[in-house]
Amino acid sequence: MTTGTGPALEWQPPGPAGALETVRRARAWLSRAAEPGSVVFWAFVEQAGPVDAVRILRAGRAPEAVQALVGARASQDASLADLRRAERCGARLVVPEDDEWPAAALHALTVAVGGEPASPKEMGDRTQAPVPPVALWVRGPGNLAEVVDRSVALVGARASTAYGEHVAGDLAHRLGERGWTVVSGGAYGIDAAAHRGALAAGAPTVAVLACGVDRVYPTGNGALLERIAQDGLVVSEWPPGAAPHRHRFLVRNRLIAALTRGTVVVEAAARSGARATARRAARLGRPVMAVPGPVTSAMSVGCHELVRDRELGAVLVSSAAHVIEEVGRLGDDLAPTPERATELRDDLSDVARRVLDACPVRRGVTPERLAAVAGCGVVEVLQVLPALEIAGLVQWTGSGWRLAPPSVGADRDDEGPDVLGAEGG
Amino acid sequence: MTTGTGPALEWQPPGPAGALETVRRARAWLSRAAEPGSVVFWAFVEQAGPVDAVRILRAGRAPEAVQALVGARASQDASLADLRRAERCGARLVVPEDDEWPAAALHALTVAVGGEPASPKEMGDRTQAPVPPVALWVRGPGNLAEVVDRSVALVGARASTAYGEHVAGDLAHRLGERGWTVVSGGAYGIDAAAHRGALAAGAPTVAVLACGVDRVYPTGNGALLERIAQDGLVVSEWPPGAAPHRHRFLVRNRLIAALTRGTVVVEAAARSGARATARRAARLGRPVMAVPGPVTSAMSVGCHELVRDRELGAVLVSSAAHVIEEVGRLGDDLAPTPERATELRDDLSDVARRVLDACPVRRGVTPERLAAVAGCGVVEVLQVLPALEIAGLVQWTGSGWRLAPPSVGADRDDEGPDVLGAEGG
Repeated sequence: MTTGTGPALEWQPPGPAGALETVRRARAWLSRAAEPGSVVFWAFVEQAGPVDAVRILRAGRAPEAVQALVGARASQDASLADLRRAERCGARLVVPEDDEWPAAALHALTVAVGGEPASPKEMGDRTQAPVPPVALWVRGPGNLAEVVDRSVALVGARASTAYGEHVAGDLAHRLGERGWTVVSGGAYGIDAAAHRGALAAGAPTVAVLACGVDRVYPTGNGALLERIAQDGLVVSEWPPGAAPHRHRFLVRNRLIAALTRGTVVVEAAARSGARATARRAARLGRPVMAVPGPVTSAMSVGCHELVRDRELGAVLVSSAAHVIEEVGRLGDDLAPTPERATELRDDLSDVARRVLDACPVRRGVTPERLAAVAGCGVVEVLQVLPALEIAGLVQWTGSGWRLAPPSVGADRDDEGPDVLGAEGG
Repeated sequence: MTTGTGPALEWQPPGPAGALETVRRARAWLSRAAEPGSVVFWAFVEQAGPVDAVRILRAGRAPEAVQALVGARASQDASLADLRRAERCGARLVVPEDDEWPAAALHALTVAVGGEPASPKEMGDRTQAPVPPVALWVRGPGNLAEVVDRSVALVGARASTAYGEHVAGDLAHRLGERGWTVVSGGAYGIDAAAHRGALAAGAPTVAVLACGVDRVYPTGNGALLERIAQDGLVVSEWPPGAAPHRHRFLVRNRLIAALTRGTVVVEAAARSGARATARRAARLGRPVMAVPGPVTSAMSVGCHELVRDRELGAVLVSSAAHVIEEVGRLGDDLAPTPERATELRDDLSDVARRVLDACPVRRGVTPERLAAVAGCGVVEVLQVLPALEIAGLVQWTGSGWRLAPPSVGADRDDEGPDVLGAEGG
């Protein structure tokens, strides 16, 4: 990595502090300063704010654990060069302060990292920690938040069989036809077949890479990644030029799980990474599904393991209709009758009821604001919000939380037959 | 059917009433007198005893509902001819009074029919009623009770694929190698592949037919049925010569479920009879398993349906080890530590504790005797016995119930590694 081609070492963000482009430049700097997936780094940026986080880190005044993650990169600045390099390949940096930031999807990571204290080991392991990205490099025409709103992850073995590729392609095609975005990792085998199937249906598909969005990796998928960048989105946490180091795939996998409403494993060998990926999705509250295959095929053993795993409870799916039945459930649950909503309110815990009462009707507010009004901790607010959302009592506006209007239920109901009535595969 | 070639119409059983051969002749007559699967007929025979049941029916003095089931056959007697015809093809009539009667296995049917009142519709429907057979025509060298003691049903489509036949044959072979008997229906497709796989392993296999054991049906399986009769057992509720009427297959299926410790469905079409068979096994407390296959294969759809059916809870299995893990559980559960047995005793209901206290240590006694000693109804005794057996507190001696000796757990444990440690397909 080269030292930045931007302004002087004593970096001063252009424009008034807090302005969106200042924030973007700061997050571009942060995106290269530390490897993604670190809880302490993300928490530091959240607390200080991106612009001040950069200032503190460059001055070497961050807490030791955070400063150590950045190391010598504190004195480098490639942020402007990275932004320009992204622009040249048709990419942009999407930041949490943008409208197209997939806040609702990534909320699960925020809750996971901010909620109940996980094992310190897990939080310290970047390949395991459920931590949100500080920013996302995005290449392609679509609005990121909109494209991933109704999406399913379709993943599997690189060393796939003709059967697995056929099933992955067909499943992706049918999901695409029904308005679902297929998210995968851009790899050989099942990933590539899934992307191709979605593209063939004229549906958007998202490749979440473990390297820069301008890199062609794997090289054999160059034409495919080009097509995805044209009709879908290529997404990465790493800045342009970043190499696909092995550990980055594991860090990347949490994003695939978080961005989607559920994960389908099409083919996986015995004791493969599929179970880890699936467990990750399950821990984020996302349904895990597995496509069966011949018991004589080594590449279906991992899928059968997932279904047999009582703890994980992966659902056997053999058609797009089965997949939609699982991921569509959330939509269903969001459509309570008014009577049901009243009953639900009665079942709430004390904290949940206070948070609910703190929610404004119109304009969404931050969890911090809710905590202040409800008189409880931010962590408590983050813990109860998902349940309130699933119960259809509150909703995310894109910038904050508010009470769900009574009409939300009706709207969702209209969507029902389209989603759940279809008969697949 | 011809009128009997035996003694005069005023049938008098040979030998002293109650002697085993008299009982056998009576049950041979009963076996042809009414179609199997009728609850009222079975209950009448149970109550009157087989010899008196024949006398009453031939005199036309049975309750109207029972007499109607026999109709004109009351005046016919082919019992001696049937027994001789069976003998000529190497078959015999096994009756509940015989040592080789599979009482422990069929106990589930006795409990089901004698226990809680099922829906009248179901009890009236011979294809649905869980009623024990009045006798079994058996062709082959083995001891019926011993052969089916450690057995698994392996069933599936007649219009099977090469994949399904391969898997059924391989599964049966590996189960046979591990000392398990494979029970199936002798039909084309999966059934035949399962029988062949077991025979190839030199293991006994049981074909439960819906026609006489001397009939070759289906005709193409003649050589296979001949081999099964030589090395395994061909079993039927119907007397020699009986034709394979369509409804008889449904009546027969309950026997396959009851005689085995679990049912594995290898291939089945969508909405096939597999689900009914599986539900039947589940209702008898037997685990239901299904082998997955390509989602592109119409013959695997039924198996995937079984696994997806949350109510039924069929377990996905892809190897003999998986199957043994399910059916071997009972053996595992029967091996409680003495401490556990004491705890279990504390959890028992009042009736269960009284029945347990009524059980003798050495010689097994009948449920009727237990009811008399415990001061409760026979139905209550039959209801609590399965739970006491599973808890390892009582055991079936082959002729009655007694307390399980403390050594039972240890014995079963010795069996453990052989059964559960094996690694399959």
